[in-house]
Amino acid sequence: MTTKRILSGMRPTGKLHLGNLHGALKNWVNLQNDDRYECFYFVADWHALTSDYSDTGQILDNVTDMVIDWLSVGLDPEKSTLFVQSRIIEHAELFLLLSMITPLPWLERNPTYKEIKEELSNRDLSTFGFLGYPVLQAADIIIYKAHGVPVGVDQLPHVELTREIARRFNFLYREIFPIPEPLISDVPKLLGIDGRKMSKSYGNSIYISDTGNELNKKILSMFTDPQRQRKSDPGRPELCNVFSFHQLYSDDSSIGEIDVECRRAGIGCIECKKRLAARITEGLQTVHERQEYYRGHIKEVLEIIENGTARASGIARATMAEVREAVKI
Amino acid sequence: MTTKRILSGMRPTGKLHLGNLHGALKNWVNLQNDDRYECFYFVADWHALTSDYSDTGQILDNVTDMVIDWLSVGLDPEKSTLFVQSRIIEHAELFLLLSMITPLPWLERNPTYKEIKEELSNRDLSTFGFLGYPVLQAADIIIYKAHGVPVGVDQLPHVELTREIARRFNFLYREIFPIPEPLISDVPKLLGIDGRKMSKSYGNSIYISDTGNELNKKILSMFTDPQRQRKSDPGRPELCNVFSFHQLYSDDSSIGEIDVECRRAGIGCIECKKRLAARITEGLQTVHERQEYYRGHIKEVLEIIENGTARASGIARATMAEVREAVKI
Repeated sequence: MTTKRILSGMRPTGKLHLGNLHGALKNWVNLQNDDRYECFYFVADWHALTSDYSDTGQILDNVTDMVIDWLSVGLDPEKSTLFVQSRIIEHAELFLLLSMITPLPWLERNPTYKEIKEELSNRDLSTFGFLGYPVLQAADIIIYKAHGVPVGVDQLPHVELTREIARRFNFLYREIFPIPEPLISDVPKLLGIDGRKMSKSYGNSIYISDTGNELNKKILSMFTDPQRQRKSDPGRPELCNVFSFHQLYSDDSSIGEIDVECRRAGIGCIECKKRLAARITEGLQTVHERQEYYRGHIKEVLEIIENGTARASGIARATMAEVREAVKI
Repeated sequence: MTTKRILSGMRPTGKLHLGNLHGALKNWVNLQNDDRYECFYFVADWHALTSDYSDTGQILDNVTDMVIDWLSVGLDPEKSTLFVQSRIIEHAELFLLLSMITPLPWLERNPTYKEIKEELSNRDLSTFGFLGYPVLQAADIIIYKAHGVPVGVDQLPHVELTREIARRFNFLYREIFPIPEPLISDVPKLLGIDGRKMSKSYGNSIYISDTGNELNKKILSMFTDPQRQRKSDPGRPELCNVFSFHQLYSDDSSIGEIDVECRRAGIGCIECKKRLAARITEGLQTVHERQEYYRGHIKEVLEIIENGTARASGIARATMAEVREAVKI
């Protein structure tokens, strides 16, 4: 059996939240622990520039913080190759070559292009690089000849673009790149404490690193079923974000009990939230222990990044040697 | 006195014609021989992909042929650094970083963008890379911290874009890049043998390497003053492409004589062209000798390219170390 190579990246936004953990990282860990796959995960620091080019002061610290979180949730540098995009400049070379063969309309039609532009309308994103970030993403993926790309449903159009660009290269020059498949995993629907999508920029996130009072305070302030104003009102767990978290952190009998008691107003939201805070604290205990360890061993973290980058670099260089020969340049 | 660094590049279109020689290369040689300047000249092979991405078979041979022509017309690897763009992948890294800070409208407004697209309407140029080639050009120039860029008037908007991009980088991050000045030289107006702009793609070029029968045939077929149909019609040298060439290749007294005799129908076009062929043959004799030498010493040519590339590479790497520190990535 040949293993399939998996590739995914994350922008270095700093410390990660439970949305990142359950939306992506748990899946990354599962793939890493599956013998069928060989996993490459990278910090997409160049991608951070597409939106943050005018304020880059945090990026370097964010890279280290994010890798600490990766290691803490169970990514294992013995099993996964963890690396930093900008240290492998062959990504930029392939980006340049793919630029030459990527029709502009493919990028202009990219459905997330306009969306993100509107979402971040306070920043000037009408840059050449922002328009072209799916080309950079394509380079990131195919330079490792990846077979699979774990993504959320919203990222599907980008993987489709990567597949189109890879096909076009193979057609124009030589069959070098496998056409990568999107790997879509079931992602639990977790919202931020204010009921909107959990996002660092909304200030509504529960961080993987949150503990004690900080964690309790956030959980106690979480939005619940809006129809349940008083403790005596019956609740609807299926509409309650707190219940969604219980489903991830509590055991089956507790979940069943809450489901029943909430509906008949037998348990109040405060009690329900206190239980949740306790379960999350337990659930993340190992993660927090690892975080503490790595924060005290930054040199080890930097070595892990260095080794992963060296490994990825060797593969990227080998691919580019083939690419240059195929393009005859 | 500090020397100023000059940078210019040329797409590898293969053997060069007299339009290239008098429009650019003579100027390059003059700059090289001027103590005030330190010259870097590069083969823009990545730029060749913007228009020729689907047919790259000739590029590698064209690189060698072009450098042979450069050496033959007097570029001296002891004085000028001659190198190949694609071998210094830091150009691609800087291209990527500059992409992030270059507003799309700057590129869409580029006056030559639409022009070239129309000129080469038989090829599909609506690619992301073609839109962004002024960004790559900017990277090519500023990565060497060039002070001056010898260009034709038609290239002025590109140098202006480079200046804007360099200013924007300096403003956003740190004052790393000098703002390069365009160096415009007087360029004689030479047309192809059919009276259109001399261009390889029009098949109307007199090549630097043309000799003997080939040269004579081309010169005898050159368009002259369209009003001079018969030998007995008086001609207007100021409108005659053959006369423009005489002004470059003949001595003053011959030029004066032709000027007079043409106007009073004292010399026919055939005689005038025969004289021109003889003068060009003489004028290019040293060039042809050098061409023969280098064609027989390809290894030496490749070594010259290698040495120049190594030298340029050292500078590009040093600049990128500064750039990464400034961008904090």
